[in-house]
Formats: sequence, C-alpha cells, structure tokens
Amino acid sequence: MHTATAGCGWSGPAVGACPDRRSVDNVDEPNERPHVVIIGAGFGGLAAAAELRDDPVDITIVDRANFHTFLPLLYQVATAGLNPADVAHPIRGIVQRQGNVRVRRGTVVGVDWEARQLEVETEAGPLAPLGFDHLIVAAGSTANFFGIPGAAELGFPLYALDDATALRNHVLACFEAADADSLLLDSGILTFVVVGGGPTGVEVAGALAELFSHVLRRDFGALEVGHARVVLVEMAESLLLNFDGSSQGHALDALRERGVEVVLGDSVEEVTATEVALSSGRRIASHTMVWAAGVRANDVASTLDVDVGRGGRIDVGTDLSIPGRSHAYAIGDIANVPVPGEEAWVPQLAPAAQQAGRHAARQIRARLAGRPTTEFRYRDKGIMATIGRRSAVAELPFGIRLSGTLAWFAWLGLHLLTLVGFRNRLSVFLNWAWNYATWDRGPRLILGTRRRPT
Amino acid sequence: MHTATAGCGWSGPAVGACPDRRSVDNVDEPNERPHVVIIGAGFGGLAAAAELRDDPVDITIVDRANFHTFLPLLYQVATAGLNPADVAHPIRGIVQRQGNVRVRRGTVVGVDWEARQLEVETEAGPLAPLGFDHLIVAAGSTANFFGIPGAAELGFPLYALDDATALRNHVLACFEAADADSLLLDSGILTFVVVGGGPTGVEVAGALAELFSHVLRRDFGALEVGHARVVLVEMAESLLLNFDGSSQGHALDALRERGVEVVLGDSVEEVTATEVALSSGRRIASHTMVWAAGVRANDVASTLDVDVGRGGRIDVGTDLSIPGRSHAYAIGDIANVPVPGEEAWVPQLAPAAQQAGRHAARQIRARLAGRPTTEFRYRDKGIMATIGRRSAVAELPFGIRLSGTLAWFAWLGLHLLTLVGFRNRLSVFLNWAWNYATWDRGPRLILGTRRRPT
Repeated sequence: MHTATAGCGWSGPAVGACPDRRSVDNVDEPNERPHVVIIGAGFGGLAAAAELRDDPVDITIVDRANFHTFLPLLYQVATAGLNPADVAHPIRGIVQRQGNVRVRRGTVVGVDWEARQLEVETEAGPLAPLGFDHLIVAAGSTANFFGIPGAAELGFPLYALDDATALRNHVLACFEAADADSLLLDSGILTFVVVGGGPTGVEVAGALAELFSHVLRRDFGALEVGHARVVLVEMAESLLLNFDGSSQGHALDALRERGVEVVLGDSVEEVTATEVALSSGRRIASHTMVWAAGVRANDVASTLDVDVGRGGRIDVGTDLSIPGRSHAYAIGDIANVPVPGEEAWVPQLAPAAQQAGRHAARQIRARLAGRPTTEFRYRDKGIMATIGRRSAVAELPFGIRLSGTLAWFAWLGLHLLTLVGFRNRLSVFLNWAWNYATWDRGPRLILGTRRRPT
Repeated sequence: MHTATAGCGWSGPAVGACPDRRSVDNVDEPNERPHVVIIGAGFGGLAAAAELRDDPVDITIVDRANFHTFLPLLYQVATAGLNPADVAHPIRGIVQRQGNVRVRRGTVVGVDWEARQLEVETEAGPLAPLGFDHLIVAAGSTANFFGIPGAAELGFPLYALDDATALRNHVLACFEAADADSLLLDSGILTFVVVGGGPTGVEVAGALAELFSHVLRRDFGALEVGHARVVLVEMAESLLLNFDGSSQGHALDALRERGVEVVLGDSVEEVTATEVALSSGRRIASHTMVWAAGVRANDVASTLDVDVGRGGRIDVGTDLSIPGRSHAYAIGDIANVPVPGEEAWVPQLAPAAQQAGRHAARQIRARLAGRPTTEFRYRDKGIMATIGRRSAVAELPFGIRLSGTLAWFAWLGLHLLTLVGFRNRLSVFLNWAWNYATWDRGPRLILGTRRRPT
C-alpha cells in the first residue's frame, strides 16, 4: 500500500506543474467555496453529504465502487434471495438532485496533509490529486482474519457486493459438482462452515439452511440435499453476544430447528481447501468457510498517516475529529468513536454511522461559521437479527423485546424503509413477497464476468 | 480443444475399470430406458426436452452455465436496462417438474461415437463419461471475428450473459474515467463503435444512445454526455439486410434521430485499445468496439468429429440428423439446416431453434417406435428489431409490416411472452414500466466477481 508523499513529489497523469490544492481539481469553474471530500459512500458518507445539501460547500464523494451497498442484506444476495442490483444503488443516482456533490470512482491510497490532497488510484491508473479543505473518512471495514492460516486465501467474507456473488457462485457450484459426482459427497463438498455467531453469521447460516431445504431440494436430488450441512462456529459460549439471553436462546433454537449445527466455545485454527480445523482439535471436512467473525478498518485507515487503535480503526475525539489533523473526521466502521464520559465505544452499526455522518457534517458547518465543535452522542436505535422465514429477534429502545414472526416483520419493514431508493425498495419487497409465497429463489445463478471475452 | 478418444482411453475421476456406456452414468437406479443427451439449454435444447416430457426416455441436459439465457434481451443487460437475473433462468428450475430430466453443468470437449459417450469438462476437472443413446447438439453460436486483428482480444461480443455484464461494466467505467479526467475525452474514451447493422447491432446502438442521452445525462455533466458518440458500422449499403426497404429506412431514421452516426458500406480492418480502423481508411478514436457482425458455431461443433460447413456449423440432413452419425441431431444456431427442395438454409432465429428442437425430439420418438424420420419444415414467424423507446420494426407473416410505436409494443409483448418463467416476465415487465415512466435505468452498476477475495 502506498504511503503519503510530502510536498510536491506526486505526479498524476497530464499534470505538468506542481499541482496546487484546487487547480488540478477538474472544477468546471473556479470558486471559493470550501471543498469537502468524503471517502466512502456507505451509510455514514451519504448521511454526511445529505446533511450538507444546502450548505455553501462543494462536496466530492470518493468510493471504489460506483454504487452504495446496503450491507445488511448482502447475505440474501449470497443465498440467492436477492439480486445484486437490489442491494446496490448508483451513487450518482443518489446525489443526482444535490447540486453541490461530485462523485469520483477510485481508491484512496495516500494523503498529503500539508497540501491537503488525496492520492486516488483507479484501474486505469492514478487520478489527479484530489484537494480538500475538509475531509470525512467513512471508508468502512473489511474482514479481519486474525492471521488464521488459510482463512484469507480460502475464506468467504461478506463485506462487499462482490463477496456476496462469489459466495453464491461457490455454493451453487458445490451442489452442481456433488450432483455430477456423488463420490464428492464424502469429501464434505456440501458442508458449509460459517464462522462467527454474531448477526451476520446467524443470518447467513439460517439463510443457507433454508436455501438448501426449501429451494435446492427441488433443484437437486434427495441425495445431495440430505448430505448438505451448515455448521455455525462461535468462539463464545452463546450466539449474538450483544443480545440478551432470551434472544440468544431464540436464535439458537431457530437455527437448530432449521438443521444448523451450532458449535459454541470453539474457534477456527486453520483452513484448507477441504477442511476447517477447530481449536478443540475437531476437523470438519468442508470446501467452504464463510467468515463472519471479525472486521478491521478498511485499508484506507492505514494509508492516512494517522493514529489507529483497536481493529486498525482511526481513534477520533468526542467531536469525531482526527487528533492532530485539523479539518478531518472519521466516522462509522473505520473509526473508534468514544462514548463521552465512559470507557466504551459507539457500536459499529448503520444507525451509528448515519448519526456520525450528520454530526461530522455539522462540525464542518460549525467550523466554517467560527463556532466550536460539539460532542457526538449516539442515540441507540436497538439491534436486530433474522434467522429465517418468520424468525428474528429485535431489541428496541424502551426495553421492547421481540422474537419470532413479529420481530421478523419488524426486521423486514425496517430494512425496506432504510434501503436507498424507491426502485430498490420495490424490487426487494417484490422479491421477498415472491420468495415467501412460492418458497422459490429466483437468482440462483452461477455468474462470472469477463473483461474481454474470446 | 480436446479431441475424441476411441475405445477405452478415457479415464475420469474415480472410474477404475473401463467404463461401459451406462454404468458410470450416476443413474441412481439402473433402468433400460433410452438415454437422450441434449447439449445446450438454449431455445432449441429446452424445446427438445419439453417435447419428450411424457416419453419413456431419460434425458440429460448438459450446459456450461447453470441457467438458460434469453439472448434477445442481452443488449438490455449491457445497457443497464435489465438485471442479469431478468434474462437468465436456472435450468434446474425450468425442468423441475419434468421427472425424466437431469442436468449437468459442464462443457462438452469430445465424443466417442463408438461407445456413445461424451467427454464433459468442468472447472473442477473432467466428469465421468456421459453415455447416450440419442444425442441432440444444440450448443448455439459464438462470435466470429473473421481474424480481424485485435477484434477477438479487444472487442465486446454479445452472445452470453457474461458478455453483457462485461460491456455494461466497461461503458460505465469509461464515463467514470472521462469524468475524473476530462483530458481523456479527446482520446475517444466516450466513442462507442458498434460493428454490424443487423438486429443486434441496431438494438445495442439505439440502446446506448438512449442510455447516454436520457440516463447518464443526469449522472454525469453535460461535458461528458456532449462528447459521447455512438457509431454504427455496417459493411452493406443498408441496415437490417433481411428486412424490407421501409423497415430499413425506419431503422436508419430512428437511429439518426437518436444521434447514432451510421456508417454504411464500410467495415472494420483493425482494432486497437484506442482506435477502430475501417477499410475505407477512416480511423475512429475509440476504446470500445461492440461486435455484432458475425457468429460461428459454438466450439462444441469442432470437437464432435462431424462434417462442418458454412460458419463452422454442423451440416445436417433434412430430418436434422447428422450424416453418418446415427441417433445424433444438430439444431438451432449450431446447425446448417437445409430448406427442403431449395438452395437455402433455415434462418438462425429463436423460433427456428424451438421448432427444430421439437422436431428432433419427435424423430427420436419415431425411431424408438420403429417409424421413419420426417423432413423438418420451418414455419416463418417473422422478424423484428427494436431501435429504442417507441421505435421498432416488425415483419410478420401474411405480409403484416409494422413500424414505430405499434411495432415496439408488439416487440415488447412478444418478448414478454417468450421469456422463460413467470418471475422473469414479471421482473422484466416491471423494469420496463419503471424505465419507461421514469427515464431511469436502475442497474447501472460496475460489478465484478471475486473467487476468493482477500
């Protein structure tokens, strides 16, 4: 990974002279409005941009993808319940009606804090340096495999849309292979190990079990589906650690009802192409390890030449600013955000990122108006996890605890409401209604992409 | 490409002894029903399988994909009007209720006519030999670049679903790059050359022009969209050669109205990463050459050790059987099907493939009953092409000629009816209604897939 270069060492394409902060910035007409750059078009970044909609600033959103990904539903793409386009929305479409926003597709690989410029790379090479007056770092997280041998190379994480389609392709290809050669069944080709008993692990384990028992049962013979196993491995002694005991119990029961084998108090020691070895000494013959057991900060954090703490995340002050880097903020999953007056961190949840995005935007507004910054206070919206058809748990504010069908409907409704874009909401709603009514999953396709087909 | 081995030279995985025709065939219970293998799950292959629904035969469909692709709408996936899943349907879903069909995902790479066995390759290696009593070859076509330098390496064909997503990714990435660096505009990064003035070329050119002027106009600045050009190159002196003069004129006018530059009587001589050179000496600065100017038979044709003719296609008799290969038939785009009593071939259209699929199935039924085979007679269902919003041409039986809005609605209706699966029809209908009402295109996403993300 590139490190930031100081001064004028950086040279982009077709930039002859030493670039000054704004002149290379492709702004159609020069102006003196402060330039806010937001790294990442996730929940936090988009909330920050929206908050600044009517402010006299120019905003540039930089993201490696040309779309916002609705991460909470990735596991449904991975299990063929939804299409990739259902959980993705083009960033340019989201900000189309907001005149002060531009979009750049690329990956931030370095910063020159002195000159206030970002280095941005694309597949086609580096872009011209991107100058900023204020910076909001909202690049999110990526999988943390904790150095477990084989995990990074062979594991399937679920933190980006491409991850979800890769897992879907792999799961379906395993069934096709087993159907073509039944001798493979003994090699564990239909044993799917999900590591991590948090909401993501519980959701993907439950969805895989339902995919096998309801959908693939009709596509494949009884032979294959009878051999299919989902094993959920959690290091702690219970699932859903952040939930209360009754929710944990409900999730455990609901998963076991669906045939998921839940292994508690054990962890992964090594992954090979045909085996997952656990710390207890147990070895599971399997060609598939889904990783839902840990995240760390996006690589952007380590390229920014700032202090990082727990999980490689950027340690910020209570106003979300990066210490020592004036005019820069970090929010969402890439930041360690302290809870004022407590030895605790704000949880890594979409509502927290959205609230922090709005807060960071307001700090920029305050600074521009010469006002002091203020502390960020997270308002708890509760936590939810779904296990499958008519089964979920929800712990909402005011001590409201739901489980089963009611929690499932609450989960569906909340996710429909928070999806970006009416078209996505409509499509997800119709897909869910179809899947529910027919026990079918349409997009069970093994798809690739070819850059230049022959 | 593998060639067929005679006798017992072939050894698949886990097959110890010399395999006899059926014993290695993974059939759960042995039986004496004749085994019909169909290569390809396109229009022809599926029609053949459906025709044999109630016959006392076992059927295996072999396809490289796990889904049927509705090729006539690929260009709408390439231009972000539809999702990949809208034009693809899992093969196993299609044949789910037909008890005598099995599905194998793999590519046929050779045949042993003596032993009546096919060699099938998968990503994971070869499958056990697939025995057959009767064979229907329906593997379709692929792009024919006629050896034009650079065309195969750099051109974008549109004959498979992956082709469509590759083109969509590329088109959107060109706009992103141009937006990030306006100096690229002079390099032709937003000039898209479509080669071939048949229905596919006309459809993709019209759809690209509408994508730019209606949809990307709102995503990108006037600068980029003003620079975007679509150039349609056709070797002949008119578009849509198989249509009559009024349809050709309508298509030409409709494309020009949409801003497409139509170049007639010229052809491509060379393609580089930044230029398309024409035979006239004209050179077009462009990073994108869409190839819609020719097809040849799928590679399967050349691995089968049979006589191939025009376009590398298998020459068949009037009853669709392969000369000298008893019990084998070729249908659809992989076959040269003679029109009885004429020096002509049956056209390469979906209805022709479907009719031929049913006919080949009936020949198998006749042979099994000891009856002679019969001549295939193509019933002309007409031809259609769409240029864009409310513009199409249709030439139907009984001399019916439509153009404009009426032809467009006929085109929409026919394609909705012929799509496989109610879910796909509903989804395509809703997407079309949405796109028509909002001038929007939802799935304008640059998506990749990663096998094993890090």
